[in-house]
Amino acid sequence: MGNLLSIYDIKDDVNKILDLASELKSGHLNNRNLNGKSLAMIFQKSSTRTRVSFDVAMYQLGGQSLFLSSKDLQMGRGEPISDTAKVLSRYVDGIMIRALKHQDVVELAQEAEIPVISGLTDLEHPCQALADMLTIKEHKGDFNRKITYMGDGNNVCNSLLLICSILGMDISVACPNEYKPNIDITNTAKTIAKNTNSKIEITENIEDALKDSDVVYTDVWVSMGDESEEEKRKKAFSQYQVNQKAMNLAKEDAIFMHCLPAIRGEEVTSEVIDGKQSVIIDQAENRLHAQKAVLYHFLKA
Amino acid sequence: MGNLLSIYDIKDDVNKILDLASELKSGHLNNRNLNGKSLAMIFQKSSTRTRVSFDVAMYQLGGQSLFLSSKDLQMGRGEPISDTAKVLSRYVDGIMIRALKHQDVVELAQEAEIPVISGLTDLEHPCQALADMLTIKEHKGDFNRKITYMGDGNNVCNSLLLICSILGMDISVACPNEYKPNIDITNTAKTIAKNTNSKIEITENIEDALKDSDVVYTDVWVSMGDESEEEKRKKAFSQYQVNQKAMNLAKEDAIFMHCLPAIRGEEVTSEVIDGKQSVIIDQAENRLHAQKAVLYHFLKA
Amino acid sequence: MGNLLSIYDIKDDVNKILDLASELKSGHLNNRNLNGKSLAMIFQKSSTRTRVSFDVAMYQLGGQSLFLSSKDLQMGRGEPISDTAKVLSRYVDGIMIRALKHQDVVELAQEAEIPVISGLTDLEHPCQALADMLTIKEHKGDFNRKITYMGDGNNVCNSLLLICSILGMDISVACPNEYKPNIDITNTAKTIAKNTNSKIEITENIEDALKDSDVVYTDVWVSMGDESEEEKRKKAFSQYQVNQKAMNLAKEDAIFMHCLPAIRGEEVTSEVIDGKQSVIIDQAENRLHAQKAVLYHFLKA
Repeated sequence: MGNLLSIYDIKDDVNKILDLASELKSGHLNNRNLNGKSLAMIFQKSSTRTRVSFDVAMYQLGGQSLFLSSKDLQMGRGEPISDTAKVLSRYVDGIMIRALKHQDVVELAQEAEIPVISGLTDLEHPCQALADMLTIKEHKGDFNRKITYMGDGNNVCNSLLLICSILGMDISVACPNEYKPNIDITNTAKTIAKNTNSKIEITENIEDALKDSDVVYTDVWVSMGDESEEEKRKKAFSQYQVNQKAMNLAKEDAIFMHCLPAIRGEEVTSEVIDGKQSVIIDQAENRLHAQKAVLYHFLKA
Repeated sequence: MGNLLSIYDIKDDVNKILDLASELKSGHLNNRNLNGKSLAMIFQKSSTRTRVSFDVAMYQLGGQSLFLSSKDLQMGRGEPISDTAKVLSRYVDGIMIRALKHQDVVELAQEAEIPVISGLTDLEHPCQALADMLTIKEHKGDFNRKITYMGDGNNVCNSLLLICSILGMDISVACPNEYKPNIDITNTAKTIAKNTNSKIEITENIEDALKDSDVVYTDVWVSMGDESEEEKRKKAFSQYQVNQKAMNLAKEDAIFMHCLPAIRGEEVTSEVIDGKQSVIIDQAENRLHAQKAVLYHFLKA
Repeated sequence: MGNLLSIYDIKDDVNKILDLASELKSGHLNNRNLNGKSLAMIFQKSSTRTRVSFDVAMYQLGGQSLFLSSKDLQMGRGEPISDTAKVLSRYVDGIMIRALKHQDVVELAQEAEIPVISGLTDLEHPCQALADMLTIKEHKGDFNRKITYMGDGNNVCNSLLLICSILGMDISVACPNEYKPNIDITNTAKTIAKNTNSKIEITENIEDALKDSDVVYTDVWVSMGDESEEEKRKKAFSQYQVNQKAMNLAKEDAIFMHCLPAIRGEEVTSEVIDGKQSVIIDQAENRLHAQKAVLYHFLKA
């Protein structure tokens, strides 16, 4: 058994899980392997892609998923996380949780006797990073590439740093000094990168970051929870917008990625996200296949 | 592929779908034809019948349904409908949506690459109309009949006009001048009716409308969204109540129909809706069978 | 057909249902017996254990469950319970309802043509009582025992009184005079107890209640709905806390039970609920097995 709270948790299994995802997507693998198994899905934040892709993933694998919003749970009424964790461990075979605080998920995983899979916390977004790598593998053929992440050094960025370092991919994060990715994760990624020959760069210089890049990636500037500092953030990130001019600084055949939802006119222009370099719908689809692989990996007896 | 936003969308298939519904209801048809398929169900308005009947329909056909309320979707946080449509098209095999604005569903269907089925908008209620016709077919044996719709010329009334014109059934709508059914739909229905010998009448005269009628149908006077004009509406519709006196103006063996929920004492008296002419529970049940036929028709590969 | 609104409804079947639960738990019984069947689950109060355990129970038995919160139902918009009952009877094979008022569930069951199972009302909690007895059977081997219920004479207490009287188990309720269990249920239990040799005691004396007890049970002092009298209740129940001193008044090998959620430091100390006499997680797990037996008993054709 194990958990998927951070990409670091699967540092030895990333390639295996990505291969499994490709196999499941191609339909070459018997698909009913989680027959009889149940997955509890706890949402403290609303979601489209995470909710639907996990639900469909469990169904296609023969299992059952239970959608639990915080307000339907006693957990919302002050029940200790440990009680919820222990009781759910007796009813279901795994827990997927989208939580506001990473620490709550760590605690849940410590108390649970079943695998806990993060569907996004304030620190990381591991399932997204797996879907992203599956998409790059499909569009670029290999990971001997450079990805540029533009904007907010958030949870998505943190998981990308780790997965790139593991896969030996170069990653350049272009962000304002005060919105850098998590420092511990950055250091972990740099340590891993020494063995994999991945180059990791955090910079305020957009030209440097985008030079020779195969993949340009961005995310919203104001995530749920950041609303109070909306104006401050918009100002700080304004020059990190991914517009056609920015895309032109990357390789000519660079692809554009975004984990969605996007706000056109803020972190990305419509010209780019709805243009021919954009692979956002393929990327969103790959949430399904990556998560099927994750579920198979963690819940298969 | 196709969509079911309006009864007009299935003008050539109404009889086929009704036959399929009868067959599915009788149990003569292999029932697991949507095995492996997923239906996303989006609700912008609350629902009992639509929710439960679609959920059970998918299960009985071997498929999966996902209940998505607007508040659980990023769509509720301002994500463009087109992004939601394109992403859902990669995860599921069909979308059922109950929406406030018909135009939103039109846009969703334009962007989606999978069938979109309306479970009620402000303009039409096609699944209800199919269930209604199945009920009339069962209770009356044929469509060589006259139906009288009393009260608000709303979405339910609009779909009835279209389906009656297609099936060659006579329909008389008794309503105040300011609450007539949609004029474009009325004209479309009248055009179709020329070929099917259906008689279509919109009138303020209750006696005329109910004369020789085989089916008396009504709906609530104040639908969700109309609450602000509640008093005005109650006054305008007061003489259109379906009470026993009104029923006596129709044929002796006329049946009473209502799409529910009903408010006893307003649009219908308890004497009528709970009396022996009422077929409302059969009618509600037929939502299940009609929708199984719709799902089979649109989602079967 | 029948309903499970009160333990009294199954007074002749309690042992049979408990045996079935053991059999289902051990995996010795073919598990797909509710294949093709649907259970509507209506929640007027939030829930973890009830929701998840019923959902998983139906899935493991091959059936489908539909989670309906009051706000998603027209029932929440003033539709008469009888209409909801009759319509649901045409769509699904059973209804599980967690309701604020027992009388609403009685009315629902009267109008429904399918089994109605209570998942908690203000009067009783029959599924909890069945899970409790399964837990006692597993930990103590037989029902020739004494259970002590400490604190609020609420719905959980009422169902325990009935099930103990049926199974011939002694039960002592230690509670303040103004928070005694329901008088009618107490009298019914006493009548049944005459034939089963169960001893039933309602007392304010904690020492008497705990003497020779095999099982010490408590529940929160302030249930949902009681919030307005929170201070008054905390004061009234303060001396009924289950702490180690209280446990020491029972048998040395007594087990501690609680239906959860618990508030540590109020009705029970952490020392007890998280200590080695506590069986609360086994007890919570048994909700699943007891309810599978209930569903099998009531929904199996």
